[in-house]
Amino acid sequence: MSAPNPPSAEKETGRLEAFSDGVIAVAITLLALDLGVPHQEAGHPWHGLVHALADQWPIYMAYLLSFLTILVMWVNHHNMFKLIERIDHLFLLLNGALLLLITLVPFATSLLAEYIEQSDKKSAQVVYAGTFLAMALVFNAMWRYAARQGGLLSATADQSQVRSITKQYSFGPLLYLTAFLIAFISAEVSLAVCIGLAVFFAIPSNLLQRTPAI
Amino acid sequence: MSAPNPPSAEKETGRLEAFSDGVIAVAITLLALDLGVPHQEAGHPWHGLVHALADQWPIYMAYLLSFLTILVMWVNHHNMFKLIERIDHLFLLLNGALLLLITLVPFATSLLAEYIEQSDKKSAQVVYAGTFLAMALVFNAMWRYAARQGGLLSATADQSQVRSITKQYSFGPLLYLTAFLIAFISAEVSLAVCIGLAVFFAIPSNLLQRTPAI
Amino acid sequence: MSAPNPPSAEKETGRLEAFSDGVIAVAITLLALDLGVPHQEAGHPWHGLVHALADQWPIYMAYLLSFLTILVMWVNHHNMFKLIERIDHLFLLLNGALLLLITLVPFATSLLAEYIEQSDKKSAQVVYAGTFLAMALVFNAMWRYAARQGGLLSATADQSQVRSITKQYSFGPLLYLTAFLIAFISAEVSLAVCIGLAVFFAIPSNLLQRTPAI
Amino acid sequence: MSAPNPPSAEKETGRLEAFSDGVIAVAITLLALDLGVPHQEAGHPWHGLVHALADQWPIYMAYLLSFLTILVMWVNHHNMFKLIERIDHLFLLLNGALLLLITLVPFATSLLAEYIEQSDKKSAQVVYAGTFLAMALVFNAMWRYAARQGGLLSATADQSQVRSITKQYSFGPLLYLTAFLIAFISAEVSLAVCIGLAVFFAIPSNLLQRTPAI
Repeated sequence: MSAPNPPSAEKETGRLEAFSDGVIAVAITLLALDLGVPHQEAGHPWHGLVHALADQWPIYMAYLLSFLTILVMWVNHHNMFKLIERIDHLFLLLNGALLLLITLVPFATSLLAEYIEQSDKKSAQVVYAGTFLAMALVFNAMWRYAARQGGLLSATADQSQVRSITKQYSFGPLLYLTAFLIAFISAEVSLAVCIGLAVFFAIPSNLLQRTPAI
Repeated sequence: MSAPNPPSAEKETGRLEAFSDGVIAVAITLLALDLGVPHQEAGHPWHGLVHALADQWPIYMAYLLSFLTILVMWVNHHNMFKLIERIDHLFLLLNGALLLLITLVPFATSLLAEYIEQSDKKSAQVVYAGTFLAMALVFNAMWRYAARQGGLLSATADQSQVRSITKQYSFGPLLYLTAFLIAFISAEVSLAVCIGLAVFFAIPSNLLQRTPAI
Repeated sequence: MSAPNPPSAEKETGRLEAFSDGVIAVAITLLALDLGVPHQEAGHPWHGLVHALADQWPIYMAYLLSFLTILVMWVNHHNMFKLIERIDHLFLLLNGALLLLITLVPFATSLLAEYIEQSDKKSAQVVYAGTFLAMALVFNAMWRYAARQGGLLSATADQSQVRSITKQYSFGPLLYLTAFLIAFISAEVSLAVCIGLAVFFAIPSNLLQRTPAI
Repeated sequence: MSAPNPPSAEKETGRLEAFSDGVIAVAITLLALDLGVPHQEAGHPWHGLVHALADQWPIYMAYLLSFLTILVMWVNHHNMFKLIERIDHLFLLLNGALLLLITLVPFATSLLAEYIEQSDKKSAQVVYAGTFLAMALVFNAMWRYAARQGGLLSATADQSQVRSITKQYSFGPLLYLTAFLIAFISAEVSLAVCIGLAVFFAIPSNLLQRTPAI
């Protein structure tokens, strides 16, 4: 486990990254399947395609938010793996749980888009913010497991940098927990918090003097 | 075939792994397409989104089970290829048969989710457990073909380790054959066995002192 | 263009292969989307799930045939690229045309599955066999363009081997042209020829003393 | 940032390219999902499958145009990354915006195919040409950001070649702006311009003595 086979260890991480990239790429592209073309229905007055598209604004807003959130998650996944050198079976399972949650995002997005203008909007937003909260929790668990006694990290990883990242990553779950809890009171405020978080995490870190986190 | 071109052999395995990863990544993500958003139908009483989602529990259960089973299959595929150095045409075909079965999982999952609460549930569970049985059989055939006289394995693979893996892998088909046969008597018991097997194979091997197997 | 940058040339081929693998992996997995779950319709007598699945035999047969044909195409694409070292813009376009045809296979497969038991079956089989014929023609054009004066091949490629492959590859279009023309007379015979060709091309070459070809 | 870790920088670019390839491969394959099989509807006269397929010509034309446009975009993305050695957070976001637009192409294509023969065709073509215009703008922004003071380019990139590419790339947005503006006057002319641009950008550059651009 020490020095004999670094190339094999390299290859192992590479295939996990490639598989994760594949799942994330398919999930982020499937989001667009929910952007249905509006049909002109017989017997209904038709106010034109522009109006029909404008009426679908919740679908586009949910699409943009979910795309940005998955993209930020991919950037973080990518940054985490730059520090990781080895993987083990439990880490594979945690990564699998993260991928499962990412593949659920298109479903949660459809749910939100369909119910955001209806009376059940709070339930839909609870599911939506809950999916993001679960993603933030699993992502944190992955990092903490990898960094625990430096278990899976590269030998060249700086310990003070590792502690700094651990501290920064722990804000993500707290912020998404807030959004999740607010969803039980107001779907709109919770959604606004989710939008704010996605934009905040997407801003280049050199503008905010921090490392990207979720 | 001996030493002249190791880089080309390396590249060959790499592209087969990448293609397999692509197919598995798409199949595992397409599972989520079956998670339809419940619609409020005109003329039907509406008990709210929470009830509607709760009524879909078979869809979520089947989704989780299929996701976990494909994930475990990917982990095993990944572990097998760490020992494989060369591929030939018949091995490509066996791998193709495994990919075919993996792409059938979303269909078998939809079938199970739709019929698990109906009178035809046994037929649906026979198809579902049968798909997993076929996956276990083809996976075993791949390993045995690769290990036969060490044909496709890395020259550094330890023969006693290879025999040990062959022995462990042979339990997968037997266990899934049991689940398959039980499906003709009770869909629920067969499904419970499938859940148990997926969880068992997913548990980190260091907790059970064994190599992952299917 | 001669010797200065071999690593960059290597990378170029690698990304084209990865992109092609991605498209082929998605297309081969999307085939399974056509395997719809049979629904029990109100007002219709229901003979059970087993009968309903058995009635869908054309869908399963078309699925298997299309999966095998795309898989054989991937194997051939993979074998071709083992001999190719450089790519140019026209080769990228030819590869793009091949990918376009491969992404059309799920559509042609759905068409065939829906019409094989109806009066318009000949039209559907003309489209289906025509798609395979076009794939074989474009694949041949790629090989001939790459091998022309050894333009894109590895410097180590043996000229007599190259001429032998060129000769063998030229049978694919002729065989698929036959299947295509028969489709105007009999859908069933043309389909049987397509099945025979897919099985023939999939058989390991050491059993037939030939190189795989389409 | 200078010489200490070239292998890590290499890997970073590699994973961004692989993720981008995955998203583009899924998006280009999802285009084919819009190619629906025509169904023989009860109560409607049926003029045969050939007529039904011929009536769908706008779907096939839109499919071909969108496939070619995404393919050309992939070729350009590929060519750009041959010159790029480093990436930063803002570049990741710009690349993310490009991927978002590429995943919108199947939606814009469906919209165009459905409305090109209806009275709202201008609105549909505004969305379609607008998507391509946005892609050309974001692609240009990526290149200009990467080339700004040679920030993200390989140290071996020739400055005069870089300035020449910058000049050539700037034509793409101007040409697509023209197509976009024409869409407000005539959907057909705007669509013809889009077809012309896709064909022009796809022609091998050695025939036109220029570098591929969008």
